[in-house]
Amino acid sequence: MAKVKKAPRPKAITPKGFRDYFGAEVSERSEMLQKIAGVYHRYGFDALESSAVETVEALGKFLPDVDRPNEGVFAWQESDDDGNGDWMALRYDLTAPLARVYAQHRNDLPTPYRRYAMGPVWRNEKPGPGRYRQFYQCDADTVGTSSMAADAEICAMLSDTLETVGIPRGDYLVRVNNRKVLNGVLEAMGLPEGEGARDNVLRTIDKFDKVGEAGVRELLTKGRLDASGAFIDGVGLSDDQAEPVIAFLTSKAADVAKTFENLRGAVGTSVIGAEGIAELEQIADLLAAGGYGADRIEIDPSVVRGLGYYTGPVYEAELTFEIFDEKGRKRQFGSVAGGGRYDDLVKRFTGQAVPATGVSIGVDRLLAALREKGRLGGRVEGPVVVTVMDRDRMADYQSMVAELRNAGIRAEVYLGNPKNFGNQLKYADRRGSPIAVIEGGDEKENGVVQIKDLILGAKIAQSATHEEWKERPSQFEVPRDQLVAKVREILEGQDG
Amino acid sequence: MAKVKKAPRPKAITPKGFRDYFGAEVSERSEMLQKIAGVYHRYGFDALESSAVETVEALGKFLPDVDRPNEGVFAWQESDDDGNGDWMALRYDLTAPLARVYAQHRNDLPTPYRRYAMGPVWRNEKPGPGRYRQFYQCDADTVGTSSMAADAEICAMLSDTLETVGIPRGDYLVRVNNRKVLNGVLEAMGLPEGEGARDNVLRTIDKFDKVGEAGVRELLTKGRLDASGAFIDGVGLSDDQAEPVIAFLTSKAADVAKTFENLRGAVGTSVIGAEGIAELEQIADLLAAGGYGADRIEIDPSVVRGLGYYTGPVYEAELTFEIFDEKGRKRQFGSVAGGGRYDDLVKRFTGQAVPATGVSIGVDRLLAALREKGRLGGRVEGPVVVTVMDRDRMADYQSMVAELRNAGIRAEVYLGNPKNFGNQLKYADRRGSPIAVIEGGDEKENGVVQIKDLILGAKIAQSATHEEWKERPSQFEVPRDQLVAKVREILEGQDG
Repeated sequence: MAKVKKAPRPKAITPKGFRDYFGAEVSERSEMLQKIAGVYHRYGFDALESSAVETVEALGKFLPDVDRPNEGVFAWQESDDDGNGDWMALRYDLTAPLARVYAQHRNDLPTPYRRYAMGPVWRNEKPGPGRYRQFYQCDADTVGTSSMAADAEICAMLSDTLETVGIPRGDYLVRVNNRKVLNGVLEAMGLPEGEGARDNVLRTIDKFDKVGEAGVRELLTKGRLDASGAFIDGVGLSDDQAEPVIAFLTSKAADVAKTFENLRGAVGTSVIGAEGIAELEQIADLLAAGGYGADRIEIDPSVVRGLGYYTGPVYEAELTFEIFDEKGRKRQFGSVAGGGRYDDLVKRFTGQAVPATGVSIGVDRLLAALREKGRLGGRVEGPVVVTVMDRDRMADYQSMVAELRNAGIRAEVYLGNPKNFGNQLKYADRRGSPIAVIEGGDEKENGVVQIKDLILGAKIAQSATHEEWKERPSQFEVPRDQLVAKVREILEGQDG
Repeated sequence: MAKVKKAPRPKAITPKGFRDYFGAEVSERSEMLQKIAGVYHRYGFDALESSAVETVEALGKFLPDVDRPNEGVFAWQESDDDGNGDWMALRYDLTAPLARVYAQHRNDLPTPYRRYAMGPVWRNEKPGPGRYRQFYQCDADTVGTSSMAADAEICAMLSDTLETVGIPRGDYLVRVNNRKVLNGVLEAMGLPEGEGARDNVLRTIDKFDKVGEAGVRELLTKGRLDASGAFIDGVGLSDDQAEPVIAFLTSKAADVAKTFENLRGAVGTSVIGAEGIAELEQIADLLAAGGYGADRIEIDPSVVRGLGYYTGPVYEAELTFEIFDEKGRKRQFGSVAGGGRYDDLVKRFTGQAVPATGVSIGVDRLLAALREKGRLGGRVEGPVVVTVMDRDRMADYQSMVAELRNAGIRAEVYLGNPKNFGNQLKYADRRGSPIAVIEGGDEKENGVVQIKDLILGAKIAQSATHEEWKERPSQFEVPRDQLVAKVREILEGQDG
């Protein structure tokens, strides 16, 4: 045969910013999403799985001035017969596709339409530590109603969801605010809409968590020295002008009625502000009627989320327990979900305003929180490994493993080269195997098998003296027909 | 404000060849995949979720001669600082990513590595009726062992999987063949490797199901008139040359020992053929030891699958019950899964041959089969709808719906405009709602609620006379505090 010049070998790597998920990482996420889907379903939400690919036009990321859609999405041009087709892109969230789906199918969908969606989204952004370009989102939205009952319901559902996946009451708080109240405050301050002053104030409000009341007061007025000694310019308001902002931020009281009274003071005569407060009051009443107290959901005027996007209520679920960050400092775990009312997304397609409200759960952060709380992992997950002592008797080992599997026990026969028995035990170790089964020629002849408790064996090897080792057997010889029963007994003992 | 020229409205459509999945379509698939994952897990397979995006190089679809990767995949070029980066693509199956993952992580993975994967894949192909450019696959593969026990195990697992998702024994058959036996036959025929004659014979073999023994004999020799009257050219073999192919195709006997005897006749003195038969015999022995009889898995030399790809055993799961096709003709449901041994995929990356074997389940076809068998979608899935008679008492309705949900009952409060009660009942109908709850002012005053059995109501409306309607009430007045109990009672009655 003629010698063919070989192509260089391809590199076996994930593209930059992408990663693979193995074993428990996959199944734990899948189990969590199933639990969440169960709650969403109980609330009457229907599943929707839209295609991962959308036209760039439908996603709303098309910039008419440039050759390529902007960098936030992964996009490509379809090739048609003329060599230039539509631009397509991977979805960057689950909300833009929902708007497209609702506009496309609105005559076939119930109104209001409650839907949930879970799946990967893609962002063409610079990856960083822990920041991937593909990640999961899990959303629930109600489209087609302006009723505050829709917002209240999603807050209640968020609370139920967190408890269902394993965050106990007291370890989380759903906090609710309203964008209109904030607008009312800005109106009360006499700041004109659409100019830089409002944005500056909004950005300052967002720092309240970090710098506190006094810090915000300085930043709104003459400026502030930060912890590093740098001077941060102020927004340049007078003390009087800054007052409504401070009143707004500090309006949360132990008693929700008092919070509302404070808010009324902060918005003054602003109509939009009063409207926002009325909406919050409706939500508070509905939640109280559903039995959701301030230990689960509270009105909190300091919640500030994606301000450009939302048009009414905004909400956020925060985990309140403390963890140690990568530098060993104690801090609150923080936000795992957020959302709010957005009334203009469907309008892009149909010209008609369609009110909508919804929440998105940060799947990876919630998983990390559950791991932190010890609510994931723990269980023995490795398979029982049936070792191969005699490669000609593979059928014997196969029938053992079939018996175990038929009894619902996770089990494997060793499929590597059986020559070196040590390698088989190393394999069992790497698999996190709880038990190894051994049947050599002698055992076969005597109608017995050896069953090795690997978990106990590891414990003994770690901590016990030689005498104790001898006294507490971690290996048992049982008649062949008691294989399944003995394995089950040991597994149950390990679980307990 | 200055008048801004409006951009035209985007079209609300899925890109060509893509679709959305709604409600039960999503949850039924998800439930089926969970069941399959359960079986795979029991067999010791670990979950793997690789990224949807791969470098084109790793996928092996890069054609060095052209600007763009070929049309089979959705691909785009990353933009780096110089304006030209790597080509990326959406995965087109789950096997190419597995080869990349195994090559990348082989030092951290157990050997052999049993893994399963489920998720969407993308094909840049011309869409057709029922043919989409995004669809689900569900694979299980064992990498790193040449043991026939790995192939046998996957066949057994496939059989268990089909029964677990709801295909009863007798309605399916896993059929096993070996590519080497076929090579042995071609060798016995004296056909040279790497030339057109072999391909022509293989293509002809693939038609055995349709044209039968006589048809294949004609096609291998002088040609054949097909049903439409067109003449199909023959491969041009002599009758003697064609004989081993016919012997091979008709070698399946009622008794597996006899099948092997026939195969030995067909491959003659071919070494590779004898090797293939020995492998099939090993698989047959292992399956018998595991209790998998010919009613579930059989050796069938007529199985021909993706011949270029596989290097040893090939297997296929076929559903044997009959359905009516779109033209009303009876036919067998056909194949829902297939796979085999492929020993060269990892070698692309590492230079070292890594033996592997695996199966892929056609998720959509299997779902269609379950639907056909009535194994999906029987349950009442719509939510109880709490109607709104008095919009000022939303909190009352909210507390009802919270009670129902807390009791585990799927329930909604109507969130549309409550003015027209007929619209609320229409909504309940569209939602497939089993029960509507009504509490007007009178009911509120008397401490009762009306509970309407919508399923019974619909049945009565369809079939009964007015008298019967009166006698069998589908609406009940119960004390408010018996709401949950009565709803549960009606739901249980509807299920039974």
